[in-house]
Amino acid sequence: MYDGIVQELIDEFGRLPGIGPKSAQRIAFHILQTPTFDVARLSELLRDIRDRVKFCDVCGNVSEQDRCAICRDPRRNQTLICVVEDAKDVSAIERTREFRGLYHVLGGAISPIAGVGPDDLRITQLMTRLADGTVQEVILATNPNLEGEATASYLSRLLTTMQITVSRLASGLPVGGDLEYADEVTLGRAFEGRRVL
Amino acid sequence: MYDGIVQELIDEFGRLPGIGPKSAQRIAFHILQTPTFDVARLSELLRDIRDRVKFCDVCGNVSEQDRCAICRDPRRNQTLICVVEDAKDVSAIERTREFRGLYHVLGGAISPIAGVGPDDLRITQLMTRLADGTVQEVILATNPNLEGEATASYLSRLLTTMQITVSRLASGLPVGGDLEYADEVTLGRAFEGRRVL
Repeated sequence: MYDGIVQELIDEFGRLPGIGPKSAQRIAFHILQTPTFDVARLSELLRDIRDRVKFCDVCGNVSEQDRCAICRDPRRNQTLICVVEDAKDVSAIERTREFRGLYHVLGGAISPIAGVGPDDLRITQLMTRLADGTVQEVILATNPNLEGEATASYLSRLLTTMQITVSRLASGLPVGGDLEYADEVTLGRAFEGRRVL
Repeated sequence: MYDGIVQELIDEFGRLPGIGPKSAQRIAFHILQTPTFDVARLSELLRDIRDRVKFCDVCGNVSEQDRCAICRDPRRNQTLICVVEDAKDVSAIERTREFRGLYHVLGGAISPIAGVGPDDLRITQLMTRLADGTVQEVILATNPNLEGEATASYLSRLLTTMQITVSRLASGLPVGGDLEYADEVTLGRAFEGRRVL
């Protein structure tokens, strides 16, 4: 335990995800003892972040404007929408540079255990976006776990009535991985999704 | 990559020790998406921390006043000083509730590789504290690694001329540990320091 403010700072850092008491202490002392660390900058960013960051009216991605940079970009393929659970997934997909369409962030996945149903996700907004017929394909890129699969199959059923191609990201062996260490479900998926060469 | 401020916040968090790019992103989104997290509080603490926290004039521990809470406490044993490398070590020892004396924080350990010599540590201040003859025992609690041992042996040589007992924390098997997994140096130390029952 430390005098007042040092302990308070440790406690606050300890409330962040993935930071235990030891890491929080290490961070607090780093801030105290490293003159080159710009603590004023971090303080200002934290002060302003919630006021400055909104969520895009169209796709739900994080944005400093009403519409995010991707939705504003006319060079993006307007006929393709990739549906993801979270704004972090947008960033992960952007890093691949494989996808040049638009996104739709659901804000989670269907999970009866966590009490998240379809109404808690941005599904109505998705249907509104699809209504005018511009979009020709919806790629379901929810996570390949129980909740993500449930959400994908719910959405795919919802979209069957529309004249839209619905696809799902491939499951299989991770590139650079080792067959020996793959779990049986992943290996099974890799067989199911095998491609003729 | 995200729009402006979100990416800036991720980058700033990524500069803290033990936080990689993925953790930084997770933390930034936690702050954005968790209304219960008191971001204003963390911002204010960071704004004030460096102005409010000083280092104790006497022992070098962190403190909000010129003298730290331990040095100010008259119930602490004034004849006993425990020498540690870092203020974090004071907190670790305080948690044991085994030690009721005073501390002296060196601010590091002697390390030729890192370019830290005796003059870079608070050794002169320690000698000044010992000059009036109040202190009867100095416990060297530097880390049981190369730098810590070097620092302890340097200090122990420096103190031989004075009428002061110099001791070193015991090395040996960690409590709750497994003999089988102990490294040979630790196990050797445990034999050396064995106690007759």
